[in-house]
Amino acid sequence: MQPYELSLADAARAVAAGELSPVELTDSVLGRIEAVETRLQAYVTVAADSARKSAARAEREIALGRSRGPLHGIPMGLKDLIDAEGMPTTASSHVRADHVAERDSAVAARLSEAGAVLLGKTHTHEFAYGLTTPQTRNAWDHSRVAGGSSGGSAVAVAAGEATFALGTDTGGSIRVPAALNGVVGLKPTYDLIPRRGVTSLSWSLDHVGPLTRTVRDASLVLAALVGRDRPDPEAGDLTGLRVGVPRNYYFERVTPEVEESVRRAIGQLQGLGAELVDVEIPLAHYIQATQWGLMVPEATSYHERTLRSVPDLYTADVRVLLEAGEFVSAGDYLRAQRARALMREAWAQLLGHVDVIAAPAVPMTAAKAGQDSVEWADGTVESVSDSYVRLSAPANITGVPALTLPVGQDHAGMPIGMQLMGRPLDEATVLRVGRAYEVAAPAPAPVLAPS
Amino acid sequence: MQPYELSLADAARAVAAGELSPVELTDSVLGRIEAVETRLQAYVTVAADSARKSAARAEREIALGRSRGPLHGIPMGLKDLIDAEGMPTTASSHVRADHVAERDSAVAARLSEAGAVLLGKTHTHEFAYGLTTPQTRNAWDHSRVAGGSSGGSAVAVAAGEATFALGTDTGGSIRVPAALNGVVGLKPTYDLIPRRGVTSLSWSLDHVGPLTRTVRDASLVLAALVGRDRPDPEAGDLTGLRVGVPRNYYFERVTPEVEESVRRAIGQLQGLGAELVDVEIPLAHYIQATQWGLMVPEATSYHERTLRSVPDLYTADVRVLLEAGEFVSAGDYLRAQRARALMREAWAQLLGHVDVIAAPAVPMTAAKAGQDSVEWADGTVESVSDSYVRLSAPANITGVPALTLPVGQDHAGMPIGMQLMGRPLDEATVLRVGRAYEVAAPAPAPVLAPS
Repeated sequence: MQPYELSLADAARAVAAGELSPVELTDSVLGRIEAVETRLQAYVTVAADSARKSAARAEREIALGRSRGPLHGIPMGLKDLIDAEGMPTTASSHVRADHVAERDSAVAARLSEAGAVLLGKTHTHEFAYGLTTPQTRNAWDHSRVAGGSSGGSAVAVAAGEATFALGTDTGGSIRVPAALNGVVGLKPTYDLIPRRGVTSLSWSLDHVGPLTRTVRDASLVLAALVGRDRPDPEAGDLTGLRVGVPRNYYFERVTPEVEESVRRAIGQLQGLGAELVDVEIPLAHYIQATQWGLMVPEATSYHERTLRSVPDLYTADVRVLLEAGEFVSAGDYLRAQRARALMREAWAQLLGHVDVIAAPAVPMTAAKAGQDSVEWADGTVESVSDSYVRLSAPANITGVPALTLPVGQDHAGMPIGMQLMGRPLDEATVLRVGRAYEVAAPAPAPVLAPS
Repeated sequence: MQPYELSLADAARAVAAGELSPVELTDSVLGRIEAVETRLQAYVTVAADSARKSAARAEREIALGRSRGPLHGIPMGLKDLIDAEGMPTTASSHVRADHVAERDSAVAARLSEAGAVLLGKTHTHEFAYGLTTPQTRNAWDHSRVAGGSSGGSAVAVAAGEATFALGTDTGGSIRVPAALNGVVGLKPTYDLIPRRGVTSLSWSLDHVGPLTRTVRDASLVLAALVGRDRPDPEAGDLTGLRVGVPRNYYFERVTPEVEESVRRAIGQLQGLGAELVDVEIPLAHYIQATQWGLMVPEATSYHERTLRSVPDLYTADVRVLLEAGEFVSAGDYLRAQRARALMREAWAQLLGHVDVIAAPAVPMTAAKAGQDSVEWADGTVESVSDSYVRLSAPANITGVPALTLPVGQDHAGMPIGMQLMGRPLDEATVLRVGRAYEVAAPAPAPVLAPS
């Protein structure tokens, strides 16, 4: 096994034990980037020299007994919406061609404080406004989409080009690419992780969070992001835990393979002692209108100036969405805000009855590149974007924490993700359930050789 | 001195000492209402029978040694936007002709828990959307406006028709009528006092708070509203306290008499030991656009259905404002939201340098009824409403606590208010400064015989 294949927890253990040096690990991951990046295009910028310097510094500190914790000396990537001092933040857009960050974002500063080694900046769907990340290829099948908007981060982690990465999630942008590339993605509670220095898509829905190879790794990154040394303790037994299984919304217009894998995984949670509880998703009819009703005008507001000064620098699909936002009335926006208030209240009630809700992360595995729409068994046709946002949106609207983890593969070998949602600020329970699952049923092929 | 003339603190002391019974006090206030209400029109509804029953119950409880604290047995009024179980909440509007509240608002429940005696519901400018409250007359001069929108509450307290009252404040609606009627008004920190069961004007700017005859009384009511038995302790000495005195905005387009009274009062704070600090109000140019940019579309959103179903039931001035809100774009609203975010940050910095900011509450004393506009010394003409909102709005936009207290009178004998603003959730300091002033320089004529 090469160092680049190690999970964060295993790499940290090896570093702490003196069996692996941060320089060796970083060189292994940089070598992997060199080997596969031409085909995958996960990165906008790779800062090999500064990464090697950081790794060498980490090595010296650790040798002197000054360990900063499990992230010390671990190589990672940041979605290119997240400022890192002295590096460009391109948002994968020509609009940002000349932009260089003057200082670290809050999360870059925290990871730097924890000793993590920044490898570079990963591709995003332009300005995070899309679910495919067309520059980047799916790590499992190059003819398929990476998912988005944190496509580069998900592919980098899946393919061994980073031991972990950060992404952002406004309507599924961490969870969708994580699910489509067979890795773990955590969208924490709204406002738990500071967004300072992170380019906004829609400020009332934006979240920053980790993409990792295991749930355990997600716990380690989260602990560093919130400023704790160690994650919550684990417990494999789920006795006494109530897992809500939606009877509406989350299993509607979902491929049979996704449904089967997720229901099998939910059965495993029951096998681990959890009690399954049939739940009704409240106000389901309003979820999509609320998500888009909040996101579209906020995104347009954020881009107001450049949309006027340099409209041609945007990709056509993103510009159309931004321009559409100019025609939204305050009344429509406020209707979405009020629907969100009702939804938050209804979800708080729902999460009074169960500890987590288990459901598919996305209704289908990775679409073919260029595929625009999907036809469901009930005859309805849906755009690929709508389909990928649909099951993610509730956690953005309500702000509850949501985790995706791999639970199977479809007939073509493409990964399937299960989503676990919990109470606001109760990441601990969501991660505990995910970790119990992954210990009981490890996912195949955590690091892929690109096909 | 009649019982209706007593401050809340004095009445509570007399009740506790067994010198005054709640029934006697309530009868005195009800008698006062009977004597002056025809001329003042402070109340929409007076519930004399249920008030007498509450007073009798308070009397029995106190006799049995079961005192609920200083509000026990004290008669008070609620602005008619605030639900009280079984009573109409008319919002002083024909739109609400048939509305009866099914349960207490959060604040009515807390006052009831504290043993206060509900006298009735006081007039508001229709749905709180105006600064004059045309149904009600100024307690000092019947040819002048009461101010608004909590005009009924302010006049009731000023004229002895209630020992204290609650109002709401979205753009000055507690502070403006309090200043124009020579009483004390407190707009607490945003979200400190729950708004459940209170008709909204603009939910991101709405606040509930007390109108009283003294700063000490405001402390007592606030303590009950936040669920504490006793207010913060007092301290007459202001040594070490930093009082910000704005060099821009708050003394611009203000009558010379208002400026002189407020500057004299600020001088008294200095005499009490405070250090005066020259401060710059940040982003002053954007205050009014931000206030109206948030308020107008939120108000229209709240009234969306009735504006379509029963538009003719609104008063013309309110309907015009509500209809105007339909033409606001989401972009304009979000621009106001973003300006607010910048203002909050800038005010937080400003309030890192000083403990409170002292300024006029309103730029002029009570206007004549029917007066539409005012011409300032610089030649600009301003509507009376804009003028009354202008100095109030910053505390609504930023959510900081703001108190007004009487500090003088103009040539016509009309009261002048000084505004004290402080750090979020630091009501204690704002009230401490106000209290120190009122002890050092008691205001004249706390309860008025209507002229």
